[in-house]
Amino acid sequence: MLKIGVLISGNGSNLQALIDEVKAGRLPAEIALVLSDNPEAYGLKRAAAAAIPARFLPPGPKRTVLSPEAEAAYADAFKQAGVELVCLAGFMRVIKAGLLAAFPGRILNIHPSLLPSFPGLAAWKQALDYGVRYTGCTVHLVEAGVDTGPIILQAVVPVEANDTPETLLNRIHREEHRIYPEAVRLFAESRVRLDGRRAVVTD
Amino acid sequence: MLKIGVLISGNGSNLQALIDEVKAGRLPAEIALVLSDNPEAYGLKRAAAAAIPARFLPPGPKRTVLSPEAEAAYADAFKQAGVELVCLAGFMRVIKAGLLAAFPGRILNIHPSLLPSFPGLAAWKQALDYGVRYTGCTVHLVEAGVDTGPIILQAVVPVEANDTPETLLNRIHREEHRIYPEAVRLFAESRVRLDGRRAVVTD
Repeated sequence: MLKIGVLISGNGSNLQALIDEVKAGRLPAEIALVLSDNPEAYGLKRAAAAAIPARFLPPGPKRTVLSPEAEAAYADAFKQAGVELVCLAGFMRVIKAGLLAAFPGRILNIHPSLLPSFPGLAAWKQALDYGVRYTGCTVHLVEAGVDTGPIILQAVVPVEANDTPETLLNRIHREEHRIYPEAVRLFAESRVRLDGRRAVVTD
Repeated sequence: MLKIGVLISGNGSNLQALIDEVKAGRLPAEIALVLSDNPEAYGLKRAAAAAIPARFLPPGPKRTVLSPEAEAAYADAFKQAGVELVCLAGFMRVIKAGLLAAFPGRILNIHPSLLPSFPGLAAWKQALDYGVRYTGCTVHLVEAGVDTGPIILQAVVPVEANDTPETLLNRIHREEHRIYPEAVRLFAESRVRLDGRRAVVTD
């Protein structure tokens, strides 16, 4: 059983997708610990409702990163829980050396665009403003750059002529909730290997 | 009947796709003139075989752009042929003010990626090296930036685990040959309008 740790900042709908797949027996993994940088994150309630250990850990004074001390505390908490794979699920801070060194090649993120298009914040809105006909979502390994790591899975979402940011994001979320558990499953089944900067999925 | 001009540098398979759609009566346009910056371009033979006026025009001394004099000559030739819409079809030079000013908002390009991912050369190889799961092609209006103009149509092509640059490019070409004539048809039917930087297709 792969032990996974999940990092959240808010609603935690991708956490819920992981919980649901584990509960349904379709994902051979155990969610060992959920950590939040926001004491009010609704995802903490989702974890509690599923009897998963979950808590707020103070992030430090900066808004976009964890302080080095906080990052060490997050890494320690995951290590003590036996976590082998860390999943960012709407975590709103950039991961730095403290966690990257503790879980090398073992931190996943899901991003609401077809990377490398539209890295950064509000990617669905960037896509709508740019005028692309297709966008989507990407599960990738986290490395030091923002949204640049090796891609595990992607899904395509057509942009409709009458889309608003909200309608488009809703359709992207549906695909996220499908491919994020699928990507974790690939790790649980040891089916991902790196070939240079490319992640290759084996049968 | 929309009069179109086509710019080529080589094989001209997208020119052939336009010729075939016009001949089949599915594209209400006339290819009025084909210009090439390369006297050996096979596309010149394709045009001749379809009885379309076509010729080599000297591009000037630089490799990546037309000289200002050459660009004026290209613009004049298209204007004299009554061209209303210019289609770049594998034209290997960056378009500058001479043609942009002569055909404002009336120059189309097709690019072998899902822009804004992978602008520039060998986009299919860039996509393969990056490790994306989906790439594709994009028809867009040409403006002063490289591969940055408003998007008219896109098509998605999955990247297969065993793809080589050649197998991937072949599948992208098939989609190009489908959406480039379709994009020209939208112009022939006056169904494209600009909303800021976005191209909106009307019914």
